[in-house]
Amino acid sequence: MPLTLDRSHVLPFLDDRPALDDRVAQAHRRVLDGETEMPEMLGWRRMLLDPDDALLESVAETAAEIRDRADVLLCIGIGGSYLGAEAVMQALDTPFSDDGPEILFAGHHLGPEYHERLFQYLDGKSVYVNVISKSGTTLEPALAFRFARRFVERHFDDADRRIIATTDADRGALHDLAVDKGYRRYVVPNGVGGRFSVLTPVGLLPIAASGVDTRSLFYGAVAGAREVTDADAGHPALQYAGDRYALGEQGYKTEVMAVMDPALRGIGAWWQQLFGESEGKDGKGLFPVVLQYTTDLHSVGQYVQQGQRTLVESFLRIDDAGEGLEVAEQDDNGDGLNYLAGKTYGEINEKAYAATAEAHAEGGVPNWTVTLPRLDAENVGRLIHFYEHAVSVSGKLLGVNPFNQPGVENYKQKMFSLLGKPS
Amino acid sequence: MPLTLDRSHVLPFLDDRPALDDRVAQAHRRVLDGETEMPEMLGWRRMLLDPDDALLESVAETAAEIRDRADVLLCIGIGGSYLGAEAVMQALDTPFSDDGPEILFAGHHLGPEYHERLFQYLDGKSVYVNVISKSGTTLEPALAFRFARRFVERHFDDADRRIIATTDADRGALHDLAVDKGYRRYVVPNGVGGRFSVLTPVGLLPIAASGVDTRSLFYGAVAGAREVTDADAGHPALQYAGDRYALGEQGYKTEVMAVMDPALRGIGAWWQQLFGESEGKDGKGLFPVVLQYTTDLHSVGQYVQQGQRTLVESFLRIDDAGEGLEVAEQDDNGDGLNYLAGKTYGEINEKAYAATAEAHAEGGVPNWTVTLPRLDAENVGRLIHFYEHAVSVSGKLLGVNPFNQPGVENYKQKMFSLLGKPS
Repeated sequence: MPLTLDRSHVLPFLDDRPALDDRVAQAHRRVLDGETEMPEMLGWRRMLLDPDDALLESVAETAAEIRDRADVLLCIGIGGSYLGAEAVMQALDTPFSDDGPEILFAGHHLGPEYHERLFQYLDGKSVYVNVISKSGTTLEPALAFRFARRFVERHFDDADRRIIATTDADRGALHDLAVDKGYRRYVVPNGVGGRFSVLTPVGLLPIAASGVDTRSLFYGAVAGAREVTDADAGHPALQYAGDRYALGEQGYKTEVMAVMDPALRGIGAWWQQLFGESEGKDGKGLFPVVLQYTTDLHSVGQYVQQGQRTLVESFLRIDDAGEGLEVAEQDDNGDGLNYLAGKTYGEINEKAYAATAEAHAEGGVPNWTVTLPRLDAENVGRLIHFYEHAVSVSGKLLGVNPFNQPGVENYKQKMFSLLGKPS
Repeated sequence: MPLTLDRSHVLPFLDDRPALDDRVAQAHRRVLDGETEMPEMLGWRRMLLDPDDALLESVAETAAEIRDRADVLLCIGIGGSYLGAEAVMQALDTPFSDDGPEILFAGHHLGPEYHERLFQYLDGKSVYVNVISKSGTTLEPALAFRFARRFVERHFDDADRRIIATTDADRGALHDLAVDKGYRRYVVPNGVGGRFSVLTPVGLLPIAASGVDTRSLFYGAVAGAREVTDADAGHPALQYAGDRYALGEQGYKTEVMAVMDPALRGIGAWWQQLFGESEGKDGKGLFPVVLQYTTDLHSVGQYVQQGQRTLVESFLRIDDAGEGLEVAEQDDNGDGLNYLAGKTYGEINEKAYAATAEAHAEGGVPNWTVTLPRLDAENVGRLIHFYEHAVSVSGKLLGVNPFNQPGVENYKQKMFSLLGKPS
């Protein structure tokens, strides 16, 4: 069963949505036909329509070696070279489980204490490193890798086997070093932007090392890509893209993704980059924000219900309400919870979701619900494709190029100038 | 040295800020003099002006017992009974350290798999529980405590010694159970709202159990509360409150708190509740959002720089740039980073901050910087008071009651109805 999109709390807010359907269908066709700005950047779709099984197999083999030999896999990357892997691992890992190597990140920020303590923590452990950077010169990962490489070279005789580089196929600082040292290499393909790269080795290798079946993950996305090929404007990804464009035109400013389980928080963070970086240009786009319910209902829930009416909301939930511990009768019933006896955490969480979606709509917050039938690799793969396709269509509707990110240059230039980088 | 507020990237955006100074000073005096709606809810300030040293001592003693005897302290609470403790612990803990008991949370959401796996994980460990709820009937913590209580009673002969209740002084489900069972009790004082309660035993006990000097934390806030008593509109907390009100009136919708170190992320989440729940009513308030840089510069940095111009930004940074690993020269310089030789992570992070603040201002995002001289207990205490005072003044300026949260009732009523709760 595929993903579903519930629009019942959005439709009442839309002024003239059917009039948009033709434009949505047209934007969709342009994405399918490559009639976009930078059509070469549709590689995220092309690779799903032409799966590289040998690559999936190679990634699985390398991951098996890591799982066999490493206490810790240190993943070095930032932005799209970090968020996708973290999202899928968080979604599919078992909480409090210590199966497989510990997977840690570095070079995803410049935190001084974090990086100092990290290498102390690694001392005495069997460490593998996956350094992920197309150019090899992005500041944060390049810096962390300089320390990680020294650490591995000092501690292990087989250092060059323990470092795996995911980088450009032909050029760049990391590519050249990896060739020189004989590191195993995986390719960040041309035509797949960082924020679309989770289903390339950028995401797949760390995800496979965490124990996830990356073939199911990938083929979940493949199924999504095939389905959308023949879809009309009634497809959920197109409805979502069209609705959010319409709401933006009506003056809404911010889209809150409200995930209904802590395991989905990373998916939210990945979505936040995908939409923020694709749409947020030329003074346009909905500002993407992630909340986790019910936690954040006890935080900014008040604001969502009654603050400025510029929010739209998309719930992300799992349609498997029978999960988790079941409440038992208790003799004293001092907490008054016996009315829940026989219900599971999943069922209770489900009622919290339904109540919140209705209350927020009543409070003036249009909201969709995206439902995953189950939280497994295949469905997470489908979900990834769902948002990748939706944001490409959405960018076309907005009239922006969803595949570039010109706004990140300004601070970088100033930073390199302050740091005295030779030009 | 106290906190500082840099307004240099805000002042150019303000239309007629000096005209507001009188209103800000007046709002400030009303908070000091208790001339607010619900003046009884100014307990967060009163308790700082009249420190209860015996309480601090008692909390420290209980925390010492927990540190001595527990492998895990399970903290059960949600909203203000969770965010403050997590914020301070995250700020002051050493990353990758295993000093003291592991501190875990429960009842801060309804995640089915999380709670199921949690109790499996606890099996065989020495567990203490701190259950934190004024009423004892808030759904999430009451539910988690039902399971936690059964777990502790089944596993330990001294179960009633291992459960510590932080609850109302005189009444409520948790109070009554704690009296009945003889649990140690700490009081959630009347007059201190949940989001203002981090410096009561609500936050202090878990924080002390994590090894933080809670006396320094508390007295940092005391120093802040005393200083503000004689302050005029030039005090940083009042400048911040006044500026953000003025920016809201000018049409800005969202305030991004950008923390410059992962250790500050929890402070951001605590601030998000404090401001969102205090201001977000009557269709008013800036929507509070937390980002962590440089991580999120590679995510929504593009949007902040070039998306819709409805964002304001407040950086939170630590003024101790000499920290962390130092970059060494490297013979091959394949990564081209030798220009950073001799610089520390702290210095590099500092340049990233300065460049970003300037770039975002150029892009049309007014931004302040709040600077902590050092990341220690005293300064975190000061910071807590800084925001508590600022939001109280800010609420007065907006014309809302910063001490209630009427909007959280709607979804709760619907949820209890769906769950079949007896009325």
